[in-house]
Amino acid sequence: MADERTKYLLTEDRIPTHWVNIAPDLPGDPLPPLNPRTGEPAGPEDLTAIFPMALIGQEVSREPEVEIPDEVREAYRLWRPTPLYRARSLEKAIGTTAHIYYKYEGVSPAGSHKPNSAIPQAYENAQAGVRKLVTETGAGQWGSSLAFACARFGLECEVYMVGSSYDQKPYRRSMMQTWGATVHRSPSNRTESGRANAEHPTGSLGIAISEAVEVAAQDPETNYSLGSVLSHVCLHQTVIGQESIAQMEMAGEEPDVVIGCVGGGSNFAGMAFPWLRRNLRDGATTRLVGAEPTACPTLTEGVYGYDFGDTSGLTPLLPMYTLGHDFVPPPVHAGGLRYHGDAPVLCAAVRAGLIEARAVRQNPSFEAAVLFARTEGIIPAPEASHAIRVAIDEANEAREAGEERVILFNLSGHGHFDLSAYDAYLAGDLEDPEFDRSGVEAALAKLPQNVPALD
Amino acid sequence: MADERTKYLLTEDRIPTHWVNIAPDLPGDPLPPLNPRTGEPAGPEDLTAIFPMALIGQEVSREPEVEIPDEVREAYRLWRPTPLYRARSLEKAIGTTAHIYYKYEGVSPAGSHKPNSAIPQAYENAQAGVRKLVTETGAGQWGSSLAFACARFGLECEVYMVGSSYDQKPYRRSMMQTWGATVHRSPSNRTESGRANAEHPTGSLGIAISEAVEVAAQDPETNYSLGSVLSHVCLHQTVIGQESIAQMEMAGEEPDVVIGCVGGGSNFAGMAFPWLRRNLRDGATTRLVGAEPTACPTLTEGVYGYDFGDTSGLTPLLPMYTLGHDFVPPPVHAGGLRYHGDAPVLCAAVRAGLIEARAVRQNPSFEAAVLFARTEGIIPAPEASHAIRVAIDEANEAREAGEERVILFNLSGHGHFDLSAYDAYLAGDLEDPEFDRSGVEAALAKLPQNVPALD
Repeated sequence: MADERTKYLLTEDRIPTHWVNIAPDLPGDPLPPLNPRTGEPAGPEDLTAIFPMALIGQEVSREPEVEIPDEVREAYRLWRPTPLYRARSLEKAIGTTAHIYYKYEGVSPAGSHKPNSAIPQAYENAQAGVRKLVTETGAGQWGSSLAFACARFGLECEVYMVGSSYDQKPYRRSMMQTWGATVHRSPSNRTESGRANAEHPTGSLGIAISEAVEVAAQDPETNYSLGSVLSHVCLHQTVIGQESIAQMEMAGEEPDVVIGCVGGGSNFAGMAFPWLRRNLRDGATTRLVGAEPTACPTLTEGVYGYDFGDTSGLTPLLPMYTLGHDFVPPPVHAGGLRYHGDAPVLCAAVRAGLIEARAVRQNPSFEAAVLFARTEGIIPAPEASHAIRVAIDEANEAREAGEERVILFNLSGHGHFDLSAYDAYLAGDLEDPEFDRSGVEAALAKLPQNVPALD
Repeated sequence: MADERTKYLLTEDRIPTHWVNIAPDLPGDPLPPLNPRTGEPAGPEDLTAIFPMALIGQEVSREPEVEIPDEVREAYRLWRPTPLYRARSLEKAIGTTAHIYYKYEGVSPAGSHKPNSAIPQAYENAQAGVRKLVTETGAGQWGSSLAFACARFGLECEVYMVGSSYDQKPYRRSMMQTWGATVHRSPSNRTESGRANAEHPTGSLGIAISEAVEVAAQDPETNYSLGSVLSHVCLHQTVIGQESIAQMEMAGEEPDVVIGCVGGGSNFAGMAFPWLRRNLRDGATTRLVGAEPTACPTLTEGVYGYDFGDTSGLTPLLPMYTLGHDFVPPPVHAGGLRYHGDAPVLCAAVRAGLIEARAVRQNPSFEAAVLFARTEGIIPAPEASHAIRVAIDEANEAREAGEERVILFNLSGHGHFDLSAYDAYLAGDLEDPEFDRSGVEAALAKLPQNVPALD
């Protein structure tokens, strides 16, 4: 029997003490990343120029739990534990007998789940004596989170921001600068990669990554930092799912389905992996559903194979569902979901049939977001709106099936810096691109050939 | 002995059941508002064309407590109780032995304390059968809060937004539209007041109020709604102070000083009045300090007298500290503090020596805001930064005096829609206007003469 509360709060002594490493729970041996030159498994030495050993250790760990350092838990206390809500007004508006809950990560300083990983990354780099972190940012969520985290641990922060975002989202840039970061429009004239693409009108995430990696690789006191995809990033995000398990216990309910949006995969992994462990170890049967944009449907339409993590081909090769590393998705407003691949650890779970994926069109996701804003009050980030859409669809399916259903989704961030997208939607001007397979076929043809085929 | 927590959370059953009405605690009989035509006390009949009786009753109530309707408490549960934080990182950065706490109202959907009053105003109007609320907004905080509240209670919402803000803050407009409100640039061609000022390049709060009042007065199904100054608005905000008393008890500390920023006065009144009642009834000696901008120093430099609440002279005359109803403050970024008067009930408490006021320059307030963002993570609204400045000054004064001091301030909102002001500050381009007494002398000369002098 559910109780009557609207929100479920945990005191800060309930911030998890460990991160959940799902890797040892997954069936079979893990596929290693590969060195693109040799085709052989990449070792720590392929990463030490840009990452500290502590994070490399987390990246390859086979321990089921990784202890969270005290200093990280201390910083988490600024906004964690995050609240979990029962969406009573939304339920009423759609006339469902389903119970809908959401975990809200938008209460962090940067407005999304991203600081969950920015804080431990900044901490471990500071511990390793690193002076500066450099990163790229597309929509600006990751860059602002890392700027905040670097301010916390006394590191310099340099951000290469995709040119089109730099021009269109000046407030995200201001936010980073307020936290003390230096922000460059990418392509810049500060790097080889930037100068080689100087004529590119908007820049791209691929170019920005290349610029950031290049800067980090050249200075021993400077490291690189990535906000999704890698295993240690997914690991850090598991505070979300662990807290949500405790909060659903407070609510006295067992979710039938847990939902999150998927770009690089970190917020969904962070939400889903603790629930997945419960499925695998305790015999729970919670369905886990990743919501991705139809315009960039990596998990639902991609090929499983080794591909680069970046567009320019600088990173190790990662085993993942991919649309091809130079696939350019249509410019949907959920910038954080426009990634050609997905976290290898998440892809392995999907491939093993442990996690489902569903693709969502842009306009129906905004329709869900506006309904959510008018009922629950929070204006969601366009990325998170994909999860809301699937949650509402699940509720409607439950009604049609005559079932009770308990639905939990991760509201990964607020949309305070995405309101121009709402403008376009409300004006009826929002494009609703279908999946363009022709672009994918060309991109997939360029997959590296010197590595094992997986699909 | 203070405990070790960073934040103090209350469960939603601790949302206050009553609002605190400070009026009966203040010395002497209250000064009534006056009808500007007759110079006689204004009665309910002067207000029924634009306000529902329930709010008029709250406006003039002499009851020490006013019960909060269940439906309002239910809506408050979306974000209340708000957290109270110990600013441990800020304390460390400024090297103080003072303990600094802040109550954070930016967790509301609109990002400030304003929904605390928008919700009960929308509720009482819906109860009275009103179909639509119309209001003005300057910076956009109030308009977006009322848009959210109207969505909650099924009312239409129409907002006249000051032209310069409409042009400069498109995201605040988008936010209102996302919640379903209709937003007009003011001056508009929809009202006499707008057409009479059609040539005004930027509009003003005075013109926008006139447009909103005019629309409300003409349609029996439409009412007007105001976001500050009036007694019922201050009343609604006292949930802030009541929660903060419970949270300081959790922290095991007694504040020596409680601080808030003052524009029309509602967030400071909401914070301070429950503490003031404790001073007056329980013998506590907490100092209460209002922080206002040097550019618009109503409490510290104004004249105590009867004046109009709006620039155009449409409202009843209110007894308050005023800089004159047609004083135009310099364009400081804390738009919410650019008001010529202050809430009469707050002014009465200041006049009685129960509350202090202090004026703060714009650049030192931004300096405090940036330090706060880099230590505590939250980017404050420019208005709230005035309270942070005074809190830091109090901590520094305590160190110089060799005193322990426990400081509590209200962080009334976040600055996600004010980042252009941070840009200007960080670039060194922010003006730091002094108080321009010449403008005030001219404005004060126009105070109504047919009413009793108070000063």
